[in-house]
Amino acid sequence: MRAVVFTDFQTFPSLTEVERPVPGPGEVLLKVAGSGACHSDVAIYEDFAEGTPGAIAPGFTLGHEVSGWIEETGPGVHGFTKGEAFLAYGPIGCGHCKACSRGQDTYCENVASMPYLGIGLGRDGGMAEYVLVPARNLVPLGDADPVDAAPLSDAGLTPYHAIKNALPNLAGGGRFALVIGLGGLGQVAVQILTALTGATVIATDMKDDAMRRAEANGAVTVPGGENQVAAIRELTGGRGVDAAFDFVGATPTIKTAQASMAQGGRLTVVGIANGVTEWSFFTTPYESTISNTYWGTIADLHEVVAMYRAGQIRPEVERYSMDDALEAYRKLESGQLSGRAVVVPHV
Amino acid sequence: MRAVVFTDFQTFPSLTEVERPVPGPGEVLLKVAGSGACHSDVAIYEDFAEGTPGAIAPGFTLGHEVSGWIEETGPGVHGFTKGEAFLAYGPIGCGHCKACSRGQDTYCENVASMPYLGIGLGRDGGMAEYVLVPARNLVPLGDADPVDAAPLSDAGLTPYHAIKNALPNLAGGGRFALVIGLGGLGQVAVQILTALTGATVIATDMKDDAMRRAEANGAVTVPGGENQVAAIRELTGGRGVDAAFDFVGATPTIKTAQASMAQGGRLTVVGIANGVTEWSFFTTPYESTISNTYWGTIADLHEVVAMYRAGQIRPEVERYSMDDALEAYRKLESGQLSGRAVVVPHV
Amino acid sequence: MRAVVFTDFQTFPSLTEVERPVPGPGEVLLKVAGSGACHSDVAIYEDFAEGTPGAIAPGFTLGHEVSGWIEETGPGVHGFTKGEAFLAYGPIGCGHCKACSRGQDTYCENVASMPYLGIGLGRDGGMAEYVLVPARNLVPLGDADPVDAAPLSDAGLTPYHAIKNALPNLAGGGRFALVIGLGGLGQVAVQILTALTGATVIATDMKDDAMRRAEANGAVTVPGGENQVAAIRELTGGRGVDAAFDFVGATPTIKTAQASMAQGGRLTVVGIANGVTEWSFFTTPYESTISNTYWGTIADLHEVVAMYRAGQIRPEVERYSMDDALEAYRKLESGQLSGRAVVVPHV
Amino acid sequence: MRAVVFTDFQTFPSLTEVERPVPGPGEVLLKVAGSGACHSDVAIYEDFAEGTPGAIAPGFTLGHEVSGWIEETGPGVHGFTKGEAFLAYGPIGCGHCKACSRGQDTYCENVASMPYLGIGLGRDGGMAEYVLVPARNLVPLGDADPVDAAPLSDAGLTPYHAIKNALPNLAGGGRFALVIGLGGLGQVAVQILTALTGATVIATDMKDDAMRRAEANGAVTVPGGENQVAAIRELTGGRGVDAAFDFVGATPTIKTAQASMAQGGRLTVVGIANGVTEWSFFTTPYESTISNTYWGTIADLHEVVAMYRAGQIRPEVERYSMDDALEAYRKLESGQLSGRAVVVPHV
Repeated sequence: MRAVVFTDFQTFPSLTEVERPVPGPGEVLLKVAGSGACHSDVAIYEDFAEGTPGAIAPGFTLGHEVSGWIEETGPGVHGFTKGEAFLAYGPIGCGHCKACSRGQDTYCENVASMPYLGIGLGRDGGMAEYVLVPARNLVPLGDADPVDAAPLSDAGLTPYHAIKNALPNLAGGGRFALVIGLGGLGQVAVQILTALTGATVIATDMKDDAMRRAEANGAVTVPGGENQVAAIRELTGGRGVDAAFDFVGATPTIKTAQASMAQGGRLTVVGIANGVTEWSFFTTPYESTISNTYWGTIADLHEVVAMYRAGQIRPEVERYSMDDALEAYRKLESGQLSGRAVVVPHV
Repeated sequence: MRAVVFTDFQTFPSLTEVERPVPGPGEVLLKVAGSGACHSDVAIYEDFAEGTPGAIAPGFTLGHEVSGWIEETGPGVHGFTKGEAFLAYGPIGCGHCKACSRGQDTYCENVASMPYLGIGLGRDGGMAEYVLVPARNLVPLGDADPVDAAPLSDAGLTPYHAIKNALPNLAGGGRFALVIGLGGLGQVAVQILTALTGATVIATDMKDDAMRRAEANGAVTVPGGENQVAAIRELTGGRGVDAAFDFVGATPTIKTAQASMAQGGRLTVVGIANGVTEWSFFTTPYESTISNTYWGTIADLHEVVAMYRAGQIRPEVERYSMDDALEAYRKLESGQLSGRAVVVPHV
Repeated sequence: MRAVVFTDFQTFPSLTEVERPVPGPGEVLLKVAGSGACHSDVAIYEDFAEGTPGAIAPGFTLGHEVSGWIEETGPGVHGFTKGEAFLAYGPIGCGHCKACSRGQDTYCENVASMPYLGIGLGRDGGMAEYVLVPARNLVPLGDADPVDAAPLSDAGLTPYHAIKNALPNLAGGGRFALVIGLGGLGQVAVQILTALTGATVIATDMKDDAMRRAEANGAVTVPGGENQVAAIRELTGGRGVDAAFDFVGATPTIKTAQASMAQGGRLTVVGIANGVTEWSFFTTPYESTISNTYWGTIADLHEVVAMYRAGQIRPEVERYSMDDALEAYRKLESGQLSGRAVVVPHV
Repeated sequence: MRAVVFTDFQTFPSLTEVERPVPGPGEVLLKVAGSGACHSDVAIYEDFAEGTPGAIAPGFTLGHEVSGWIEETGPGVHGFTKGEAFLAYGPIGCGHCKACSRGQDTYCENVASMPYLGIGLGRDGGMAEYVLVPARNLVPLGDADPVDAAPLSDAGLTPYHAIKNALPNLAGGGRFALVIGLGGLGQVAVQILTALTGATVIATDMKDDAMRRAEANGAVTVPGGENQVAAIRELTGGRGVDAAFDFVGATPTIKTAQASMAQGGRLTVVGIANGVTEWSFFTTPYESTISNTYWGTIADLHEVVAMYRAGQIRPEVERYSMDDALEAYRKLESGQLSGRAVVVPHV
């Protein structure tokens, strides 16, 4: 079968022929429906060198946003029917620590001794005709379109988890949420906030068309620039926002979010642009918090799928055939994509 | 000034001339903008006899859903400007117990020794040209229409409080809520649930037009009758509802709600039709709860007003002049009102 | 190897020779350290007949409270070292539904199609020299005594889960908890409540020595009889209890708990004596709840083990050799045990 | 009557004769039982100059930690009996904003237009024979010693509020808490954490005797110095602490706390030494938070009193007569007090 393989550090991936895998104990072989191309794939093959902290050793198929149909089940796997559609939860931890026991493999306590981080992250991913997935990582899609669903396992799950943690801050009338950075994850964040809360969603980005899409998704937008924080505060009647989500994570965006917080508000930095900020008692609204978050849980992904099936999350997707898979990555690198590129191996 | 006075048990109220009151310590005199006629008013003057448990002694002006403009402030009251519009929180407790300290006068620990329960409930209410309200009971309306706002202090606050307690059960994707009884409170409940959660809101009532209004407010409706529970469960994919709100509270409606619950669901009985049901371990989905609730807190009312100002709560109101105030009660008694009757003393 | 086998309905189990099992995919073979004898084992072999609801078909080794040392690992299992001690989480669900994904196999959505409910519950349990356990069900014991630990997987986990759900009701100063039924689970409940909350723990039982043990564990006790509810209320200053746990679950115990509740309190029925009670609006303190619960999650069991290792849970155990395993069940049936009987196959 | 009056900025207070006040609307006159001397009193008269941010204009009696007996009630006040003992909640907000409505005057939305911040903070406080307190600020002490209780209204309430916000992080087995700074508030924090949670409480301070007192209160102590963070982490099995409370708030203490956090932990800075720290995505354990907090709510103070009456909070108090009130402030300034100085005007 064909696969997009990460062959070496700082080397563009190859579309190449690999052997179709056979499901081991506890695994399922999925016939891939869709596989999303993510910026972190580019980081994997482009940014890191051998030995860099965060580097994942080459020699595997890319693709951690995967959906597909059951093709075959391995030993000890029961309860699946060939042809049924599923979305795959990407992270794979040790499976038996406390974090893994609650389906939060992202925070696996034994991550240091794991040979990989997840599907397409150290072990073969979904940019191929078939992919192996542990049975417990599968979330049923029912009759929903599996191709559009593929990006949800990262671009849906990551904002969902960040927002779910902040729902207590947004529970009730008269709340305000702020979304900074309106790329793929930020747009889904606007959709999720609009669906799950009664908050006024304030959104901001440098790109005009991203602002227009956020407005179509139900947000009020505020342009960047000098008066940005004042404009945000004015929308809240001066009080500030109850929850902010920074999908950029650069120093200026974190500082903008900090300056926009209400008392008791919750600022979650999701973007990994590695910004640094200051914290001090007297510049922080009482009982407001700042924190980070990473991906999500299997149970969260079940809920993301429920929102997708209800039309509350509507991924923007550009489909590519397997022949054009590398083209998708090239466009991703050069910023030419308006939605998420999803490779569809079987047409 | 003119007022609608409860003169005696089991006696229709009188529209009569009374003295305009003078604000005492901590009080404000409101020029009444609107005063809602509520079914519990009818209970007060019609259902109870002297000495009946729950009876409130006669001799006061009715009206516990009141809005108005600042007319005059009493000793020790600061921070109000004549002419500003406010909504009044109806309950009045001792003011210094733990429950009152957090603005939940409904659960005042010293209720037994209080001479009244609230505005229009043992002390003079808002069915008059002017009304006295403790300063801490006032919630600012800003430039929102105060007449339509009046019913919110009960018909808005009561469902809001019940729903707010259940928001953790509805937090996230793929949730289901059930509203039983689509009168004034039930319709507002549908509006609140639709605004504040992503849940599919299932609504049910015996009246067809109430069902149509609930649909217009965003609910999916299920008719009564034999297959009602099965129809509700089917909408939830068999799982049941995560939160149910029974605004009737009769034995059959409570049992319908119980039979519709999901694991971990929360059933709140708001209606006081005094239904009785059975509870047993093996007929109850694990970790689901039943409870009751009564009215709400001052902080809740601030949030109700925020939703009203944002257009998320849209009261259905029929306006009556002071001349027609008794007519409003007559129509309420005979079931001829489609929205809430609000008496407007100053036109 | 020897094992205590449930051979037929309404038949006392047999101590017999069976084959030592071999770990399959995802499984670990534990050399059993301790195996607790539980009342529900007696229900399994004594109370049910073929076809009765709740009956589990015979032909398996008993024992769902099991600890042991790693002996051998099956295909696909990594990260375990021979000789390390673990406690086994008993329930086994499908492994891939939403409930199982968060380690709550007790509420597996596919339970109806599962061939067993857990270890010693439809598949071979721990009343044997060796037992098979899925790797994800293992909780590390470190250097703590594994024999005393064995009962924790049920007699510790069940009260822990019920109490953990109620911790928000007990969070803060001036709270009161009620424990009804001071057998094995009830005593552990008193220990957990005393350790994890600042609540005054009120305990009640028919047996004097159980009351004394509860007092030694930090509870205030109230005898049964006519004035029981009044005595409980008096201890709370009239307000009632914030959380009640009924480990009996008979009609009179549930009603005692209901009559003792405070506003906003939480009554959890854990005991399965199948009591039935009434619920009505006007007899229920506002916002208090009644619910049931069943066993717990893997993450909970990690926390139970942490409490055991910290000396906060102190199981009362009577040890039996494999030769005396049936004697342990006989004493259990006749009520002659004061602590939990734990069978120790390797001495 | 005699009173300790703040007469001018940067001037030691005077013990002088003032007129006994008369309760206005909504107020109660307390005969003072005890009045705690707090470091912030010293800040008021010593640190600030006219016009400095945070300065409170002189000309009032000090003392914001006050207890006493009902002497007289003002207009509109009901439900109090002469001679009954109460603790006073110090903060006084506008009384009618949302924050005040829930008894959290510390976060009053109209603070900017208020003539004072609270009792002894811009209006006459409790360092006198009598003091005026709004009725809603009174928390009943029953038959508990009112003198020892006095400091609870700040030195008890402040740590209580910070800890109560963090109780969800500490709910369950195997949790760890860190207390930095073992002065009056820190010692009470250790007592509260020990009483209300099952967490291992790790405490640290520069003073040896403070460490010994913390140990007597149930804490494990870790000395300062180079290996402090490593020692804290080792006590937690490497995981870090689930909640940290910094009662110093200097840059080094905040950084120590940050470096000790577990995933999902909550760091609350209470001390106002105005430290500054850095925050960045990759140096922060996932989902851990930093925040600040200020004093508490009236409902919290009810719970503090419940803990005091149950013996769970045991203030360390040194009593001073009115004659020696200034001596108490002198010792406070020079660091010669081991417990809280409480002035007792009526002996």
